[in-house]
Amino acid sequence: MEGVDYLGDERKKAEFDVEAMKIVWAGSPQNFQLSDRISKLVDNDPVFRKDNRAMLPRKELFKNSLRKAAYARKRIIELRLSEEEASKLWFYVDEISYTTLHREMFIPAIKGQATDEQQQKWLPLAYKMQIIGCYAQTELGHGSDVKGLETTSTFDPRTDEFVLHSPTLTSSKWWPGGLGKVSTHAIVYARLVLDGKDHGVHGFIVQLRSLEDHKPLPGITIGDIGMKFGNGGFNTTDNGVLRLDHVRIPRDHMLMRISQVTREGMYKQSDVPRQLVYGTLVYMRKGIVVEASCYLSRAVCIATRYSAVRRQFGSQNGGPETQVIDYKTQQNRLFPLLASAYAFRFVGEWLEWLYADVMTRLQANDFSTLPESHACTAGLKSITTSVTADGIEQCRKLCGGHGYLCSSGLPELFAVYIPNCTFEGDNIVLLLQVARFLMKTVSQLGNGKQPVGTISYMGRIEHLMQCRCNVQRVEDWLKFSQVLEAFEARAARMSVSVARNLSKFTNSEEGFAELSADLVEAAVAHCQLIVVSKFIEKVQRDDIGGEGVKRQLELLCGIYCLSLVHKHRGDFLSTGYLTPDQAALANHQLRSLYTKVRPNAVGLVDAFNYSDHYLSSILGRYDGNVYPKLYEAAWKDPFNESDVPDGYEEYVRPLLKQQLHTSRL
Amino acid sequence: MEGVDYLGDERKKAEFDVEAMKIVWAGSPQNFQLSDRISKLVDNDPVFRKDNRAMLPRKELFKNSLRKAAYARKRIIELRLSEEEASKLWFYVDEISYTTLHREMFIPAIKGQATDEQQQKWLPLAYKMQIIGCYAQTELGHGSDVKGLETTSTFDPRTDEFVLHSPTLTSSKWWPGGLGKVSTHAIVYARLVLDGKDHGVHGFIVQLRSLEDHKPLPGITIGDIGMKFGNGGFNTTDNGVLRLDHVRIPRDHMLMRISQVTREGMYKQSDVPRQLVYGTLVYMRKGIVVEASCYLSRAVCIATRYSAVRRQFGSQNGGPETQVIDYKTQQNRLFPLLASAYAFRFVGEWLEWLYADVMTRLQANDFSTLPESHACTAGLKSITTSVTADGIEQCRKLCGGHGYLCSSGLPELFAVYIPNCTFEGDNIVLLLQVARFLMKTVSQLGNGKQPVGTISYMGRIEHLMQCRCNVQRVEDWLKFSQVLEAFEARAARMSVSVARNLSKFTNSEEGFAELSADLVEAAVAHCQLIVVSKFIEKVQRDDIGGEGVKRQLELLCGIYCLSLVHKHRGDFLSTGYLTPDQAALANHQLRSLYTKVRPNAVGLVDAFNYSDHYLSSILGRYDGNVYPKLYEAAWKDPFNESDVPDGYEEYVRPLLKQQLHTSRL
Repeated sequence: MEGVDYLGDERKKAEFDVEAMKIVWAGSPQNFQLSDRISKLVDNDPVFRKDNRAMLPRKELFKNSLRKAAYARKRIIELRLSEEEASKLWFYVDEISYTTLHREMFIPAIKGQATDEQQQKWLPLAYKMQIIGCYAQTELGHGSDVKGLETTSTFDPRTDEFVLHSPTLTSSKWWPGGLGKVSTHAIVYARLVLDGKDHGVHGFIVQLRSLEDHKPLPGITIGDIGMKFGNGGFNTTDNGVLRLDHVRIPRDHMLMRISQVTREGMYKQSDVPRQLVYGTLVYMRKGIVVEASCYLSRAVCIATRYSAVRRQFGSQNGGPETQVIDYKTQQNRLFPLLASAYAFRFVGEWLEWLYADVMTRLQANDFSTLPESHACTAGLKSITTSVTADGIEQCRKLCGGHGYLCSSGLPELFAVYIPNCTFEGDNIVLLLQVARFLMKTVSQLGNGKQPVGTISYMGRIEHLMQCRCNVQRVEDWLKFSQVLEAFEARAARMSVSVARNLSKFTNSEEGFAELSADLVEAAVAHCQLIVVSKFIEKVQRDDIGGEGVKRQLELLCGIYCLSLVHKHRGDFLSTGYLTPDQAALANHQLRSLYTKVRPNAVGLVDAFNYSDHYLSSILGRYDGNVYPKLYEAAWKDPFNESDVPDGYEEYVRPLLKQQLHTSRL
Repeated sequence: MEGVDYLGDERKKAEFDVEAMKIVWAGSPQNFQLSDRISKLVDNDPVFRKDNRAMLPRKELFKNSLRKAAYARKRIIELRLSEEEASKLWFYVDEISYTTLHREMFIPAIKGQATDEQQQKWLPLAYKMQIIGCYAQTELGHGSDVKGLETTSTFDPRTDEFVLHSPTLTSSKWWPGGLGKVSTHAIVYARLVLDGKDHGVHGFIVQLRSLEDHKPLPGITIGDIGMKFGNGGFNTTDNGVLRLDHVRIPRDHMLMRISQVTREGMYKQSDVPRQLVYGTLVYMRKGIVVEASCYLSRAVCIATRYSAVRRQFGSQNGGPETQVIDYKTQQNRLFPLLASAYAFRFVGEWLEWLYADVMTRLQANDFSTLPESHACTAGLKSITTSVTADGIEQCRKLCGGHGYLCSSGLPELFAVYIPNCTFEGDNIVLLLQVARFLMKTVSQLGNGKQPVGTISYMGRIEHLMQCRCNVQRVEDWLKFSQVLEAFEARAARMSVSVARNLSKFTNSEEGFAELSADLVEAAVAHCQLIVVSKFIEKVQRDDIGGEGVKRQLELLCGIYCLSLVHKHRGDFLSTGYLTPDQAALANHQLRSLYTKVRPNAVGLVDAFNYSDHYLSSILGRYDGNVYPKLYEAAWKDPFNESDVPDGYEEYVRPLLKQQLHTSRL
C-alpha cells in the first residue's frame, strides 16, 4: 500500500495552482527554493528524527538535543551554509535548544547594546560558538517588570571591576534558556550601582563556566529549573537558575553602547539614541508574528488533512461515512484558523517592511513613527500568539481522540508554543500598552496632529463615528471596502467610548486601572483591524500570479474578516455600526464562503510545503495513510517490549490473588 | 520561616465564615467530614506522593501507578472502608489508573447490562478485583458513532459460542483505559451476527489474559497505544489496542439484560425497557459535571493564591509592587472562573437530584421526562467540560511564566483534564443533540404539550419573544429575576430564530447540517440558562447558614451571570432583548462585583478545602511560601545531580573547541 495517496481525490478537487500558492506563502520564488532545499536536507537525515521525543526520559532527551545541535553545526560548516541558510536549517531541525537563545538573544543583544570595540571582541567568538551565551534577565520574583529586577552590579573603582551579586532569593535568575547546563557566558541584567547610587538595569557579560572543564566558576551557582509543560516541548533545553555571589568582571564587560561607566566610576550617556532599543523590539516581535503563522499553519495542516481522512456518521446504505471536514461545525472551527494562518503570514510579511522602515528612520534620527510602530508590533505579537495558542488546541480537539496521542504531533506543538503568550511581553500587558497609545491618539485628535501608519484611520474619526453599514444583501459582505470600514468604525468607536469613560475619572491612572478590561477590548479591535487591512492589501495586489490563487486568497480573507465580525458581533452591534440583520447576513455569507473553500482546503494546507518530517504527525501525513501508521507506531513504543508490564509480580498479581495483606508495597 | 502564613493578611480580609462555606461546597456536614478525613489519610502517606510524576520515565511512572493502586486497595481492605469511603480515597489518590476504568466503567456496565444471574457470577469477582476489567468500545477508525463499530461477534450454534473477531485494521479496539497491560477481562462491544444477519452492537465479556501468568490468551493481541499529552497525565494508565482473531467465548458471556440470544441462535428482546440505558448516561454525565467543578476549582485555587502572592509593577517609592490579583485585567479573567467553579458545583448537586428523579420514573415506566433529562445532561457535560478545559489553561497563563513549570501543577491538570471534551460524547456532537431537542420543542409549541423541567421556559414563549429588559440603572442588574429573564429570552429567541431559518429548507436534514453552527450557539444559550437558573435557585434557598456566606454566593452568582452577558452580548443585542446601554450597565455592575469579591477571593478558594498534597502545586501552596519552595524543588530534579550534563564531552566540548569535523556525532 506504500505510495498510495489517500488524499489524492481531495487534491484533484483543488481549484487553484498549489505550486503558485507555495510561492505566495513563501514570499518569493527564492524563499521557496531555499526553504524547500534546506527542508529536504533535514528530512532525510536520521540524526534529526523527532518521533521519539515524547518517549525519551529527560536526560536522554537533553543529550539527544545536544547531539542534534552539534550535528547541525557540523553540517552548517561542512556545507558552508550562509547565515540565511543556517537559520533555515535550525528552523527545520525544529527543536528548542541552547543554540536558539545563543543565536536569537545573545548575539542580537551584543549587536544592539555593545560598542563597536566590544562587538569586535565578542561577536567572532559567538559566531564560531567558541563561547555559548544566554540572556539572563528574568528573576524568580520578577518577570514582566524589568525595572523591578534585584540583581546588583556594583562598580569597584579600586580594581576597575563590577561585582555582580544576587542579594535575595527572589533575585535568582530564573528561566533563561540554555543557562542551566550549557552556556559558558551570559548577558546578566542587573542594577548598576555607582558609589551607592542606583542607575537602573543594565546588561553585563559574565563568564559562567570554565572553558576547560565546563564547571561553574567560583561564586556562581547554576542549575536547571525542572520539568516544563509537555513531553518534549521546552524540556529539550535547559532553562536555568543562576545565583551570583560577589562575582567580579572587568569594567569593559558592561554593554556600553548606550550608557557607559568611566574608569573613575562616572555614569555617562553616549550619543547613540536610546530609541534604538525599539528597533530591537520591533525585530523580535516581527519574528514572533512570523512564527505564529508557522505554528498555526502546522496545526491547521494536520487538522485539515485528518479531517479529510476521518469519517464519522452519515453512512447511507452501508456506504462510507461522511468525511468530518464536510460538517459545518468542523468547518466553522477549522476554516477561520486556516484563514488566520494566512492572515498572520501576510501581516508578518508586512512587518518585515515596517522593520526596514523603522531602521531607516532611526538612522536618520526620525523618531516620529516609533510610538505607532511600537504599539502596532506589541499588539500584533499579542493577538497572533493568543490566537495561535488557542488555535493549536482547537485543532487538536478537531482531530477527536487521536489528537491526544503524542504521535499526532499536536500535544508537542501546543507545549512548545504556549510560552509565546507570556514571554517577550505578556499578552495582556502588551495590549494595555496598545490601549495607552490609543487613548493618547484619541486625546490628541483635533490638535492638528495627523495620526500615521496603522492608526491613520483615526484621522477620519468624524466619518467613522457617524457612518452606518450599507450592507443590504448577502453579497454586499464580499466588498472589502465595506468590511474594512466596519472594522475601522468598530475600532474607532470602541477607543472613543472607553476614552469618554476614562474622562469621568478625576485620577486618570485610577480610571485606566478600573477600565483596563475595556481598554484591552479596544486594543484587540485595533489590532484585528491591522491584520484585516494588511490581508485586504495583500489580496488586492496585482502581483499575485497562478491560476485561481487570488480567488482563494479572497475567500480566505473573507472568512478571516467575517468570522471575526460574527465572533465579535457584540462590538459591532453595541457601537451601532451594524444592525442585527446585517450581522445575520455576515454569518450567512460566512457559511457560503466555507462551502466555497471546502474543495480547496487540502490544497491550501499543501501550499505550506511542510514535509512529513517537519510536521511530525501521523494524523497530518501527506498521503493520509493514518490508521496503519498509528497502529505501527504503537508497537514501536518501548513500553510494548514486554506483554507483562514491569510491576506485575509485585503489584498486580498479589491484588488479583487476594494476597495484598502479606505483600510489601 | 516554616509555619509562616504569607497569605494570612488575605485570610483576615475575608468577610464571611470560611468554615461554613466549606460545608456549602461539600454539600453537607457529613460530606465535608468524610472528604476531610479521607483526604488526610492520603496526604500523610509517602506512597501517594505525586510531585515526582513529571520526572519519571514512562515505565517507572506506570510501575509507580500500579504500586499506588495496590497500596490503595490494601488500605481500603485494612481500614474496612465503605464503598463511599473507598471512592473518596481513589479521588484523593488522584492518579488515573486501571482501577478508574474498572470501577467506573466495567462494573457499572455489568450492573446495567447483565442479567441478574450474570451479575451474581461476575460482580463478586469484580468487586474483589479477582478479575480486572475494562470497557472496549472505541476502535481505531470509530469513535463517536457507535453504530459504525466493525468488530464482529458471530454465534456458532454447533458449540454454543460466540466467535469474536477484528475483521479490519480499523476495527482494532483502540483507547480503552486499562486494556494495554493490566486488564484480565474486557467488555468488548461488537456487531452481533446470527446466521449471517447483523443485529447491531452488543456487549460481550471476554477474558484477555491468563489469570496465572498474565500472558494474553490465544488469538488475542494487546498492547499500549503509546504516549499521550503531558508528562504524567494519562500516561499513568495503559490505554490499549486489542485485536481479536476468532476468539471463542461461551454464549452466556453476552450481556443479556436487554436482548438475548437463545441456544438455538434466536435473537430476543427482554421486557426490560431499553430506556434504562439513559439512566446510565445521566449517571455518567452527572459525574463528569461534578468532576468539572473539581478540576476548575483546583486550577482557580492555584491561580487565586498565586495571584495574591505575586507582585508586578506599581511600586511606589520603593515599596512593594502591586499584588497581581488587584489588577482588573486579572480579576476579569480569574473571577468569572471562580464563579464558574461554584456554578458547576451547584448544577452538579442538582444533577444528583435529577438522576434520582429519572431512576424513580424509569422504575415506574414513566419515560416522559427522558428526552429533557437526556438533553439537559448532554448539554451540561458539554459546556462545563469546555469551560473547565479552557479555564485551566487560562489559570496557567494567569500565573505568568511559572505556570509553565510542572511544579505549578497546572500542566498536569490540563493534560489530565482535556480528554473530557472528547470522550463520553464529543462536546460538539452533544450540543447538536441538545439542538435537535430544542428544535423539536419549538416545533411542538402550541400543540398543547407543555414543556417540562429545564425547558419549561419555552411554555412562556410569547412573553419571552416580546419582553424587553427593564434595566435602567447599574443596580437593576443585581435583581436575579431580571437576569433570569434575560437568559430565558436569549435562549428562547435564539432557538426560535434558528428554527425559522431551518423551516426555509425543503430538506430538514440538509438545513440542520447547513445551520449546525447556529444550532450549536442556540444549544449553548439553553445550557448556560440551566446553569444560571440552578445557581440562582441555590442562592435563594433559605438553608444556607454561616456569616456572610449567602452574600458571597450572591456576588459569585452575579459575576457568573453578568460575565456571560458581557461575553455573549452579541446574542442579547441581536435578539433585541438588550440595548447597548443596558449591556454597558451590565459590564459596569460586573466590575463593581469584582471589587466586592476581591477581599474574599482567597477565602473562597480555601473553602474548597484542598490540601497541598491534593493540589500538588507550589504556586497554590496554602501558606503562599512560593519562591523558596520553587527554588528547592528545582534542585531536587535528578537532572541537577551533575553540574556538567551527560553529553558534554561528546557534543558540547568538540563544538566549543572547534573540533566538530573530527568528532563522531
